[in-house]
Amino acid sequence: MAGFTDATRVRPDGAGGFDAELDPLWTVGGKPNGGYLLAILARAAVEAAGTHPDPLSASAVYLSPPDPGPAAVSVEVLRTGRSASQIRARLSQKDRTCVEALFTLGALAAAGEPRWVDAAPPPVAAEQDLFPTPAQAPGTGLRIDMLEQFEQRIDWQAVGDPAGELRGWLRLPDGATWDPVSLLFAADAFPPATFTLGSNGWTPTLELTVYVRALPAAGPLRVRQRARLLTEHLVDQVCEIWDSQDRVVVQATQLAAYRMATP
Amino acid sequence: MAGFTDATRVRPDGAGGFDAELDPLWTVGGKPNGGYLLAILARAAVEAAGTHPDPLSASAVYLSPPDPGPAAVSVEVLRTGRSASQIRARLSQKDRTCVEALFTLGALAAAGEPRWVDAAPPPVAAEQDLFPTPAQAPGTGLRIDMLEQFEQRIDWQAVGDPAGELRGWLRLPDGATWDPVSLLFAADAFPPATFTLGSNGWTPTLELTVYVRALPAAGPLRVRQRARLLTEHLVDQVCEIWDSQDRVVVQATQLAAYRMATP
Repeated sequence: MAGFTDATRVRPDGAGGFDAELDPLWTVGGKPNGGYLLAILARAAVEAAGTHPDPLSASAVYLSPPDPGPAAVSVEVLRTGRSASQIRARLSQKDRTCVEALFTLGALAAAGEPRWVDAAPPPVAAEQDLFPTPAQAPGTGLRIDMLEQFEQRIDWQAVGDPAGELRGWLRLPDGATWDPVSLLFAADAFPPATFTLGSNGWTPTLELTVYVRALPAAGPLRVRQRARLLTEHLVDQVCEIWDSQDRVVVQATQLAAYRMATP
Repeated sequence: MAGFTDATRVRPDGAGGFDAELDPLWTVGGKPNGGYLLAILARAAVEAAGTHPDPLSASAVYLSPPDPGPAAVSVEVLRTGRSASQIRARLSQKDRTCVEALFTLGALAAAGEPRWVDAAPPPVAAEQDLFPTPAQAPGTGLRIDMLEQFEQRIDWQAVGDPAGELRGWLRLPDGATWDPVSLLFAADAFPPATFTLGSNGWTPTLELTVYVRALPAAGPLRVRQRARLLTEHLVDQVCEIWDSQDRVVVQATQLAAYRMATP
């Protein structure tokens, strides 16, 4: 996963914060993806805390979309504990605050096997029978550069069955494996489920919360993205992810603004 | 709703922050309830922003449980916008940070009617056929003082059907109506769903995210609390709330530490 790891690297700035370089390749319409930004904040949080390797929870508010290029991350350790630590991190660019997030860090290797689970993996057509989503989909004006950095395969036959839901696969190139930080990205890597409801309007994220529940096995991720309630201006989306061993690895929810596309 | 409104009041401290008084009545085992603390932070956020009346999203990390008594709330306005503003708020007591939360504020009166919804209200036995949960349940050592401030009625016949789920009603006394701030409390007012799985252990909240989706109609709230994945030390719980008109008003999720009760 050299690509993603390199693209989310943070370097201590010598004054308690971190420098990051927002990669133009991990963008949607020229703007860095929200899950990609959350992963950068998580890496700064893990490094600043120095106590636990993995994000267990990440909750972000998106304030202003940054551009590719240099950005600064400031971090405040709120609590360090034996089993978990909690951290706040902020990404800013040219003195403009872009994203702020709260993290709970812990050690997923100690999570053990599930005692009880109510989240069976949903059916998705076999990966090899689905096409990778192209960065420039025919008939759309939007270029999604990040789709050239990983494979997103959507089960188009199953879209809208049930309504408001889409399912598919995510895979990193060159056999690279997912890890708890790249899972934060995966939680925001699917298209908005609102398009299954007949709208291809923008859905800029206001709030995104991701729980990482297990260390993922090697192989692709199985993803289900669902909208539950669409009002005039807001929509929530639930993203659930299973690893190749059918174990739940991500439970995420986001609240997004909803704007009708201009026809 | 004088009780809850009084108990969550914040007063400007003259230095940009707020003073709060944590009420001993809104406690579980002597400690202020997490949703109650989130409501206090929301009131400070709304007052500090001065732009929008309602919390649309609230995401909190719980660091250290405060005691009843005086507490301080500090607030930073992260972004003010036309349709939404975003705020960070922190509750501390005696220089110890207890809770920190990120808010998106907006105006729910402008939310309009749902365009699409996939969240039918679940069956719950009629309110008058269910007993209010007592503050001191027989056979438990835990006193839940807040249960004398509102009515919580659990459908015991339906507990564990399906497994990991409990359903019931919440009502404020004296015909008081719920509002977007008290809905933040409602999202954390039910018992942990883990007890339907045969455990009455503690589940201290690490992270709680609440989306308030509509202004609630007068009358009781219908609540469904579900655990989805229980691992060795962590559990997530989804809390969904409908108002008396069967409209979705709250979508919430929390990640909690899970400790077996000592037998």
